[in-house]
Amino acid sequence: MSSPREEHTQSPGNELALADAEAVLAAQPFSVLLGTRLTRFDGTGATLELDLRPEHLQQNGFAHGGILAYLADNALTFAGGTALGPAILTGGLALDYLRPAPAGATLRADATVVHHSRRRAVCRCDITAVRADGETVTCAAAQGTIVAVGDR
Amino acid sequence: MSSPREEHTQSPGNELALADAEAVLAAQPFSVLLGTRLTRFDGTGATLELDLRPEHLQQNGFAHGGILAYLADNALTFAGGTALGPAILTGGLALDYLRPAPAGATLRADATVVHHSRRRAVCRCDITAVRADGETVTCAAAQGTIVAVGDR
Amino acid sequence: MSSPREEHTQSPGNELALADAEAVLAAQPFSVLLGTRLTRFDGTGATLELDLRPEHLQQNGFAHGGILAYLADNALTFAGGTALGPAILTGGLALDYLRPAPAGATLRADATVVHHSRRRAVCRCDITAVRADGETVTCAAAQGTIVAVGDR
Amino acid sequence: MSSPREEHTQSPGNELALADAEAVLAAQPFSVLLGTRLTRFDGTGATLELDLRPEHLQQNGFAHGGILAYLADNALTFAGGTALGPAILTGGLALDYLRPAPAGATLRADATVVHHSRRRAVCRCDITAVRADGETVTCAAAQGTIVAVGDR
Repeated sequence: MSSPREEHTQSPGNELALADAEAVLAAQPFSVLLGTRLTRFDGTGATLELDLRPEHLQQNGFAHGGILAYLADNALTFAGGTALGPAILTGGLALDYLRPAPAGATLRADATVVHHSRRRAVCRCDITAVRADGETVTCAAAQGTIVAVGDR
Repeated sequence: MSSPREEHTQSPGNELALADAEAVLAAQPFSVLLGTRLTRFDGTGATLELDLRPEHLQQNGFAHGGILAYLADNALTFAGGTALGPAILTGGLALDYLRPAPAGATLRADATVVHHSRRRAVCRCDITAVRADGETVTCAAAQGTIVAVGDR
Repeated sequence: MSSPREEHTQSPGNELALADAEAVLAAQPFSVLLGTRLTRFDGTGATLELDLRPEHLQQNGFAHGGILAYLADNALTFAGGTALGPAILTGGLALDYLRPAPAGATLRADATVVHHSRRRAVCRCDITAVRADGETVTCAAAQGTIVAVGDR
Repeated sequence: MSSPREEHTQSPGNELALADAEAVLAAQPFSVLLGTRLTRFDGTGATLELDLRPEHLQQNGFAHGGILAYLADNALTFAGGTALGPAILTGGLALDYLRPAPAGATLRADATVVHHSRRRAVCRCDITAVRADGETVTCAAAQGTIVAVGDR
């Protein structure tokens, strides 16, 4: 059986898949509010990016943990979508915070599929902050489960 | 030893503690952006509330998972603060999504301390959606670890 | 709709359900090896107990973390079974270690159902150690997801 | 600063570190009971292996989930030890089950350090089952936090 994930890798429809995923992101008002961009959606996973703005911070001037949690949730879900298609739900996730993300940085959430069946994908996500001076800091690591919904 | 958590319960300084915690929330630009309110901060934990607005939703008209993840992160951290004081970091959390939160609902994240030492608190959080018709739906369940920072 | 979980609570078949669950535990060679007992299986969850033996310890004389992880996994699964019936799989779990369990104690893993649909239950588990002198120590806290398998 | 992890990689003391770690494993009665072997302990993490025996199974003839949870816990902790040294505790872990491990297989838990400071390491672990016919199945994926204890 040719899985959807393999199709993404091999078929000429890959660019279309990226465009489809970008349309999903553009249809999420919360992602539009935050300014999230989809920069990768291919056979191994998906990457989201977000430029930190002052309204994304917490009381000490770093990115709010909720911004990192949002990015982990969304990047894991898009990664699951590369394996399971668009009709999916996020079952849950675990997130470990590593280092604070400084104001002004660009956050990048890079998620990959660890394993998937036709109905369920387990994915991992690393969130890094790229600072204005170009230095990169790993800020969080996550693992989550995405499940297909509806009939297949 | 009298722990900070017991002090919150028993001392007349309890209302002050709530005011202090509200000041922390007001100093989080991301929480101000989302409209989060602190409605409980006492000897057993903390509760945050948020009225869902159109810009908090995902592509199917429900609260974005990232909103629930933000609420879990923040409520767990405030709950940890009732046990450990204000100088804390969130180490990590695990979040299971249960049911989608419908547009127009008020989200309530109720977090309690399961166990704490002087340096570390493990907390749990239930997120419910109170719909316009008054019906309540449990949307997510989380567990997380908060750690004290700096010298004590 | 009458859920299986409600049936466990209300029907005269409750004792049978406990006996059925005990038979499942007795059919797990690993649980027999460790000496695990099922002491509760009712409408709200399940409790497992295990008397710590020298072969359950780690290098510092406390219960090995793997014993606590085994108990969490198994108690969460039995709790899920109170809601979903016997044809289930454990999707995953998150476990926070709180305090070491001393040699000679009896471990008790108490798991409850937080929320369940017909196909999925999210459960929580607290593991306590009851020492020889009767004192109780909370050793670990877990949350996990159990899913129904097969046709319903 | 030269971290312990880098020393493991670069110094001639690397074999000694492996021997030290093997001595820790041999001092864990629970690991001796289960027959666990340490097959890697180097600058990037640690690998544990275990030959499945009939007493490690659950009621359907597959490895008990608790065996996988034990392996995840222990491999994550040893991986943390490559970064933090021997005086460590496991703070917690999240584990997703992927596929059942069949009787007769050898389980391999391969854990790596994602990020570490002097006091805390976040690690990931993949558990695979190598069947008698040589085929490999990924059975579980985990992420966990290890913390240093005592003065440094």
